Amino acid sequence: MFSGLSAFPLTPMNEHGLDEAAFARLIELLVAANVDSIGVLGSTGNYAYLTMVERARVLRLAVEHAGNVPVIAGIGALRTRDVLTLAEDAQSAGADGVLLPPMSYQKLSADEVFGLYETVAHELSLPLCVYDNPGTTQFVFSDELHGQIAQLPNVASIKIPGVPGDAAEARSRVDRLRAQIPSRVTVGVSGDGLAANGLNAGCDAWYSVIGGVFPATALAITRAAQAGNAQEATRLSERLQPLWQLFSEYGGSLRVVAAAAELRGLVERPCLPLPLKALSGEGRHRLAELIDELELS
Amino acid sequence: MFSGLSAFPLTPMNEHGLDEAAFARLIELLVAANVDSIGVLGSTGNYAYLTMVERARVLRLAVEHAGNVPVIAGIGALRTRDVLTLAEDAQSAGADGVLLPPMSYQKLSADEVFGLYETVAHELSLPLCVYDNPGTTQFVFSDELHGQIAQLPNVASIKIPGVPGDAAEARSRVDRLRAQIPSRVTVGVSGDGLAANGLNAGCDAWYSVIGGVFPATALAITRAAQAGNAQEATRLSERLQPLWQLFSEYGGSLRVVAAAAELRGLVERPCLPLPLKALSGEGRHRLAELIDELELS
Repeated sequence: MFSGLSAFPLTPMNEHGLDEAAFARLIELLVAANVDSIGVLGSTGNYAYLTMVERARVLRLAVEHAGNVPVIAGIGALRTRDVLTLAEDAQSAGADGVLLPPMSYQKLSADEVFGLYETVAHELSLPLCVYDNPGTTQFVFSDELHGQIAQLPNVASIKIPGVPGDAAEARSRVDRLRAQIPSRVTVGVSGDGLAANGLNAGCDAWYSVIGGVFPATALAITRAAQAGNAQEATRLSERLQPLWQLFSEYGGSLRVVAAAAELRGLVERPCLPLPLKALSGEGRHRLAELIDELELS
Repeated sequence: MFSGLSAFPLTPMNEHGLDEAAFARLIELLVAANVDSIGVLGSTGNYAYLTMVERARVLRLAVEHAGNVPVIAGIGALRTRDVLTLAEDAQSAGADGVLLPPMSYQKLSADEVFGLYETVAHELSLPLCVYDNPGTTQFVFSDELHGQIAQLPNVASIKIPGVPGDAAEARSRVDRLRAQIPSRVTVGVSGDGLAANGLNAGCDAWYSVIGGVFPATALAITRAAQAGNAQEATRLSERLQPLWQLFSEYGGSLRVVAAAAELRGLVERPCLPLPLKALSGEGRHRLAELIDELELS
């Protein structure tokens, strides 16, 4: 489950609530595209902006519509207490795995983060992916800490925030991490713009934002890398440079993929919770052109 | 209300719930000490870790025990929808003002932050303090944005994260901000270690973490500065240097004041929500000695 293309869909919502029908359609889109797993309630799924009840509902919808595609449920929360509840919800809803970020308001210490994973890992009966994303959690993992957490029961994968742009450096970054963790623990790359690099450098999985809205485009890159055709994976990713450029200009991927889902008619506008706003104006116009020109799908 | 010493108490809790009795005692301690206002459910009050129901309960307890001391209620939340609900709760509970941070999971843009304040300011019937704290919100206000927000209805104060250590630079920092905002809007300093500098530089208020657990110590500094005795305010603050040193060594003030409240017997141990942990080991030992040596109270 923690290998290949893991697609992370949006959770479409507005000020009145979830758009359950649109969410179910997004899941069905990913199933039809044949992604390797679906990661719901990740950062792209706006887990942090939903109530516990809304999250349980989203997860049940995902499992209901995912068919045979494994569902990974984000269980991040500020409190350990809530993470444990979400882990139970994931188990009872029939999720296949869980994804746990060290979400913070007060920046966490390494000791606090280890304590969180230790508590949760011992309570779990599902495989867990460690979600390393300093951009949203404000926590920077050391490889040493990754190594300690990876020894805990049920830890099965690590979602790393990215790899260096240089191929040799990317490989050495992945190798350094692998040297700290058991071989049963997979490594998955995120940060879509460098995902081809990550896969070419030996990452087992791509935890993918664009995979949630353009699964065919993300799968083409993934399958090329998996077939050992590094050059083709790189070429397909470099073709998308104008899209990666939008991500970096507009504060990350979320506002761009939200606009993309709106433009494709997959969700209604708005689909993000205020104060967040999807890409608008000139950036949105460029995005609409890119979707056509690059035949994103 | 947004001047003098505003004391920010902890909200004592554990994995089972709030410690309401201890919270009420903290409020009574502040009332007895004669602080100028009480800021509940700020960062020190762990607002981000509580449910909406728990927050409403904490606020009602604060108002019930605060007597004639004005109560400022933190209404920060990730979603605008929840901030509006919390603003209504604050009004119906009888709070005197509200404090609003641009809390984030996805880093916010200036446009999104302005949109949040604009929406809330127009719905409010209480004075609002803008809470500028990049350390927990990941958002850095420009003075220009402060100026735009300060023009909105009901905006009455700005809580700035600190001032430079140099007296002249501190004054010029406060003056630069004042040049952007209407004169009805007060400026309050936070970051306890530089609060004396801030007050000496012309800040109207100290939004104080140590004021929540050592109100007499914080009041002595505040009153000296208010009386124009800058030198005495500085001396009293410099005396506390070993305490400021603990703050910087242990990831901020929260874990230290939580341990201080535990050591003083004001709250039970633990009083922070996991995964957060109060100061322990060697740091806690140094803190216990400091409380005695510096006669913190």
